[in-house]
Amino acid sequence: MHMSKKLDRTQIITLIACTLAIAAVIAGVLFINQKKSEANNHPYYAELEAAHHDMMTGTMPDPAKQKTIAVLLYEGFTPMDAFGPMASVSTLNGYRVVTVAKTKDPIKAETGTIMIADHTLDEISQADVLIVPGGLFGTIDASKDEQILSWIRTIDKTSTYTTSVCTGSWILAAADVIDGKLASTHWSGKEYLEKLGAKYSDRRYTVDGKYITAAGISAGIDMGLALTAKLKDADAAKAAQLMMEYDPQPPFDSGSPDKADPKLRDIMQNMQDDHIKWAEDQPAHQHEM
Amino acid sequence: MHMSKKLDRTQIITLIACTLAIAAVIAGVLFINQKKSEANNHPYYAELEAAHHDMMTGTMPDPAKQKTIAVLLYEGFTPMDAFGPMASVSTLNGYRVVTVAKTKDPIKAETGTIMIADHTLDEISQADVLIVPGGLFGTIDASKDEQILSWIRTIDKTSTYTTSVCTGSWILAAADVIDGKLASTHWSGKEYLEKLGAKYSDRRYTVDGKYITAAGISAGIDMGLALTAKLKDADAAKAAQLMMEYDPQPPFDSGSPDKADPKLRDIMQNMQDDHIKWAEDQPAHQHEM
Repeated sequence: MHMSKKLDRTQIITLIACTLAIAAVIAGVLFINQKKSEANNHPYYAELEAAHHDMMTGTMPDPAKQKTIAVLLYEGFTPMDAFGPMASVSTLNGYRVVTVAKTKDPIKAETGTIMIADHTLDEISQADVLIVPGGLFGTIDASKDEQILSWIRTIDKTSTYTTSVCTGSWILAAADVIDGKLASTHWSGKEYLEKLGAKYSDRRYTVDGKYITAAGISAGIDMGLALTAKLKDADAAKAAQLMMEYDPQPPFDSGSPDKADPKLRDIMQNMQDDHIKWAEDQPAHQHEM
Repeated sequence: MHMSKKLDRTQIITLIACTLAIAAVIAGVLFINQKKSEANNHPYYAELEAAHHDMMTGTMPDPAKQKTIAVLLYEGFTPMDAFGPMASVSTLNGYRVVTVAKTKDPIKAETGTIMIADHTLDEISQADVLIVPGGLFGTIDASKDEQILSWIRTIDKTSTYTTSVCTGSWILAAADVIDGKLASTHWSGKEYLEKLGAKYSDRRYTVDGKYITAAGISAGIDMGLALTAKLKDADAAKAAQLMMEYDPQPPFDSGSPDKADPKLRDIMQNMQDDHIKWAEDQPAHQHEM
């Protein structure tokens, strides 16, 4: 009996040890599944890794199967208005981003930089997203250009989102696609926007139905991230934000008319008013400045 | 006597009225001078208005009398790295901004957009400011290109500021102009930067002597504003900030490796490591991706 009792104790200890071991294995399996489940909470991450794999193996997606984001280029457009949103949508899988202009002749952007569009207006008759950058003299010129306005109306008919940055909303308004709608624009260009038929909004970017319009130049980055979240999800937008290290730390705080020196604001508003008045009085496509 | 006294009173009243009138005129003149003096506190504003006047009257400054800000373009550069700083320095009077590349043949930027540089490397032998944008495959390629590296060393000899955005600091390091110096770069590219001889700094932009290097892509805007303040003054930088409406309001908070989801950060770091390893192993100027 004594031996038997001793064996029983050993058996009990063995049983406890086995139970603990089994519990540990079960806990381990549960832990791994939990981790897998967490990873599955981010389906976008899997897409990102798949796209990376495709890139490294040269298995690039068929452009014909991708949705199209079309960026309008025109003489005098502001490069940052186009390339800010383009950086913000760069992590979207299943989309191709193309630039579109009247011709494939060299275009002189506002900075003087020469660019050539990927496609002519005729070559792109449908796009899921349209992005119209702003500018100044060239933008007023484009807002009088029936070929550009007519193309915008065509694309807008079937677009999921029609968007603009800065004074690009002038062109959308001139094309009559945002008549009576709330729209952002450069702070100094609100009067001209309203003259063209839209209602000015002082938001960083304004969503009115499928129309998303950003405020001045740099606001296109914020708008682009919001657009990416709408087209895919927040994870895709956050990936783009990390990719472009968009953790802004402006060394000054003069980025809006409310924050800037009122004298500076008035000087710049007067300049803008002069520029608009001058450009409005010119015949379309005759001026270059 | 009575009359005489009355006249005296009238004379006194007249005298007081005249004194008040003269005092009012003096006060008015002093007030106007005070206002003029306030305006003179912002000599930059006067310059801004003079530049506007020149623009509206077609009296543009002689490019030969302007200082030069040279922006290096190369196959695969990231457009926002170049156009962010270019927008930030756009309010500088007395400077011309030119793009420079090996040839005037079309260059395909990272976004696929075709651009043509204003000048070849041979045409620009001196610049007050050099701006080197980043990228990925094309940037590693440029960091092996002796023609580009040699040109950077030449420009750097007499530049007031030599700057970069994102992985552009890889090229400066490869050119041996920032050996042992503190430099920012894209958060995922710090190891490669240190391999090339610079010391990584995790600041939004880093000033080490005349070298100003920005972190990833969007940091070029912050760096450009700081550069504008150094080249002119805070007023010029604040004018640029208001012009580009740089009052950032990112819709997400994922713009730095510290703020982003660690899993996303690790995925992107792994991708970048793969890309760098792949590009490093390629012979120079043979790959296009």
